[in-house]
Amino acid sequence: MFDLRPVGYVIGLLVATLGAAMLLPLLVDLAAGNGHWPVFAQSAVITCLAGGLIALACANGVQQGLSLQQTFLLTTGVWVALPVFGALPFAFGATEARAVDAFFEAMSGLTTTGSTVLTGLETLPAGLLLWRGLLQWLGGIGIIVVAMVFLPELRVGGMQIFRAEAFDTMGKILPRAAEIATRISSIYVGLTMLCVLAYVASGMSPFDATVHAMTTIATGGFANYDASFAAFGPATHYWAALFMVLAALPFVRFVQFTAGTARPLLRDSQIHAFLGIAAVLVVLLTAAQALGAGAFTEPALRGALFNGVSIMTGTGYASADYMQWGAFAALLLFFAGLVGGCAGSTSCSVKVFRYQLLFASIRAQLARIHAPHGVFEPRYQGRPVSEDVLNSVMAFFVFFVVTLGVISVALSMTGLDFVTSVSGAAAALANIGPGLGEEIGPTGNFAGLNDTAKWTLAFAMLVGRLELLAVYVIFTLTFWRA
Amino acid sequence: MFDLRPVGYVIGLLVATLGAAMLLPLLVDLAAGNGHWPVFAQSAVITCLAGGLIALACANGVQQGLSLQQTFLLTTGVWVALPVFGALPFAFGATEARAVDAFFEAMSGLTTTGSTVLTGLETLPAGLLLWRGLLQWLGGIGIIVVAMVFLPELRVGGMQIFRAEAFDTMGKILPRAAEIATRISSIYVGLTMLCVLAYVASGMSPFDATVHAMTTIATGGFANYDASFAAFGPATHYWAALFMVLAALPFVRFVQFTAGTARPLLRDSQIHAFLGIAAVLVVLLTAAQALGAGAFTEPALRGALFNGVSIMTGTGYASADYMQWGAFAALLLFFAGLVGGCAGSTSCSVKVFRYQLLFASIRAQLARIHAPHGVFEPRYQGRPVSEDVLNSVMAFFVFFVVTLGVISVALSMTGLDFVTSVSGAAAALANIGPGLGEEIGPTGNFAGLNDTAKWTLAFAMLVGRLELLAVYVIFTLTFWRA
Ligand SMILES: [K+]
Ligand SMILES: [K+]
Repeated sequence: MFDLRPVGYVIGLLVATLGAAMLLPLLVDLAAGNGHWPVFAQSAVITCLAGGLIALACANGVQQGLSLQQTFLLTTGVWVALPVFGALPFAFGATEARAVDAFFEAMSGLTTTGSTVLTGLETLPAGLLLWRGLLQWLGGIGIIVVAMVFLPELRVGGMQIFRAEAFDTMGKILPRAAEIATRISSIYVGLTMLCVLAYVASGMSPFDATVHAMTTIATGGFANYDASFAAFGPATHYWAALFMVLAALPFVRFVQFTAGTARPLLRDSQIHAFLGIAAVLVVLLTAAQALGAGAFTEPALRGALFNGVSIMTGTGYASADYMQWGAFAALLLFFAGLVGGCAGSTSCSVKVFRYQLLFASIRAQLARIHAPHGVFEPRYQGRPVSEDVLNSVMAFFVFFVVTLGVISVALSMTGLDFVTSVSGAAAALANIGPGLGEEIGPTGNFAGLNDTAKWTLAFAMLVGRLELLAVYVIFTLTFWRA
Repeated sequence: MFDLRPVGYVIGLLVATLGAAMLLPLLVDLAAGNGHWPVFAQSAVITCLAGGLIALACANGVQQGLSLQQTFLLTTGVWVALPVFGALPFAFGATEARAVDAFFEAMSGLTTTGSTVLTGLETLPAGLLLWRGLLQWLGGIGIIVVAMVFLPELRVGGMQIFRAEAFDTMGKILPRAAEIATRISSIYVGLTMLCVLAYVASGMSPFDATVHAMTTIATGGFANYDASFAAFGPATHYWAALFMVLAALPFVRFVQFTAGTARPLLRDSQIHAFLGIAAVLVVLLTAAQALGAGAFTEPALRGALFNGVSIMTGTGYASADYMQWGAFAALLLFFAGLVGGCAGSTSCSVKVFRYQLLFASIRAQLARIHAPHGVFEPRYQGRPVSEDVLNSVMAFFVFFVVTLGVISVALSMTGLDFVTSVSGAAAALANIGPGLGEEIGPTGNFAGLNDTAKWTLAFAMLVGRLELLAVYVIFTLTFWRA
């Protein structure tokens, strides 16, 4: 078997970093004078100590670079280890959450899913609310880096198509992964700060603006109020919709844009397709409400825009009870969630580029059916697509659909009804957050589910966030034989 | 544009043949003395005349063989033209069906879907019941011939993998398509006769036995009673389950078996996988009932066997209200229907071999992830699978899932609820018959749906029966430019 120590070393360091991040909510609770700060002090000490010890224990195994197996194990290991420690404040704090609930909330945070098992969010200490926002914000930047740097190398889910691109299109200026990560992080921080300003300008308190900006740019969806965005005024809804859309675009395009080349941003066919689908969705959702009410109103348009964008980007905020809009709207939102945003963003799900690749392949095939001896090559963004990429995308799509089915059946086995099982599986696997129906819909909550269902959903979040194969590959025998 | 006359000629002949088939229900109604025979006389005259005139008008275009375009147009044209004329007895007869209902019923018959808009089946003239059975029986043999002879040539949905096989494994004894068709038809007739005998032996009247044997071997599911198989005793359920399984196996294996070689039948990995999945399904469905009732009973096992096999093979009979078995059973049945039977049988849906091919491809890819420079070839039944076949299967799967989504949304737009929309779309596209929920579930009926929903479902049946791409290719521009 291969050496596990380099993996443990990095995980240890990241766990310790998470512990350090707990100092922020500690300070907030200290400033608020609510007496809740010792929770974060305890959690921070435990987390930093545990992380430090793991890193220390593995330090003698540090080497140059990671093997393929080590990289896979690291990716999944990080998203299992961090939620364990990220859960501590929920277990120790005012929420007094049981292990399953604390882990569910932390996994939901770090995978930017945004399903919550907590109620009465308004009454929670400020530190805990900030911690929820921080988990999503860190999870969001973490996943972009993984998607840009690791997944292309691992050739998972067709992400290798962005391998050459990320390096090429920056014109060899940014040859190293670390530099890409740094540039993207700056964009991430910059967008978050702009979002804070917009929210404050439209009436949120600085604290709410900060937490919600974090969960907006992470397309995470955790909110400080049980009512989600229904707690805020119309102006915030429009700003949130704008920033959710921005957060679902490929971040590498922003890097290029700030470097002075707007062309890649404006000419990206993935962005065009994403915006096109979102526009159609908003029009149809508005129509569904207008036909139901017999009149076209601004709240209907705003509700369609905000909630449509929220589900399609996988953010998961709600500003209205869209279960009241009828089965047509519910199904549209369900399938929009299975489309998702762009690759290289914080949004999850199948993602637009995979549908584009699948359809490009199908178009080439239809052409081949007409002219069996012709040569037709599927193309994406003007370049030919290799069989390797197409096969990866296909594997992703099949695994996604089959996993969705298996998770749905598993949930129904624990006693959930049809719609809750299917929409819950989709909401977790695509990291959206809310599902459909009374229980886990926009006005509901995951608190009432049984423990088995919660563990199942937490697993689905992990698998979905890491593009399925990056997790599944670890369960194969050949992986451990290498 | 290409010559349409050869296509019209064959369609005309087939329409005339359908008209001739109306003489059977005519004779039955004449013998029953119910005064209903003129309906079939009128229908037969119109159908034979129309078919004859079409054939005559196109006769001067007859040529040797059909081009690719002509073959595509013929396949879809047949399954549009025959339902139009097959609908006449429902419009003229005791059912006095409106155009949409008559067409729905005939399309549901000829595609072997088995969804019905008729109620009070017990009270219908015998001729009409026989006509429903005949439509499914003819549709069933028609689709096997299309699947064995046409689709592999058209390279649709990965069926080309059976192209070499059908000819090869018969050891060059059967080089011509017509001979394959003849042999398979004999098996089809033979199985139907055995099924009639089994049903009569277990207590059905000869008439019921004949009609139900026809709809069993066609995995069609039309029944003579509103209660479906709940109208018959336990022994019929076991026999029906056996014959539904046989009808979902690749018919070419029976041809080889009757030619004296049992080995291909026994060693077919598609058959193994199909029987394995069906066994797991029956065990889980039995468990779902036993856990609910607190006891294991014969009716529970029989209900699980009969209804599980009925949905998985896409037959669509019901012997119990399986909506009462809970959400777990409902979801299991829903996904079992999306698996389907074996290729080269009368059953529809995605089919077992496509999942096998997709998973073989994924396995090869996982191996490639571990060892990026190794060469891993997906294999099926011991042979390497070409990229062409894999791409076709992938295209089929993507189109299937996307079409399922689009049809679901379209149905919800007409006012159907979530479960009815999704399960109705699946039931039509996979040619199963019944859906889930009150309205179109095992105890329900499609009569109450609005007309738009009925047309949409009829279209889904057609598209699903012809493996999607065979229909979609006609909507492409390049098709007509050839
Ligand atoms: K989310
Ligand atoms: K059927």
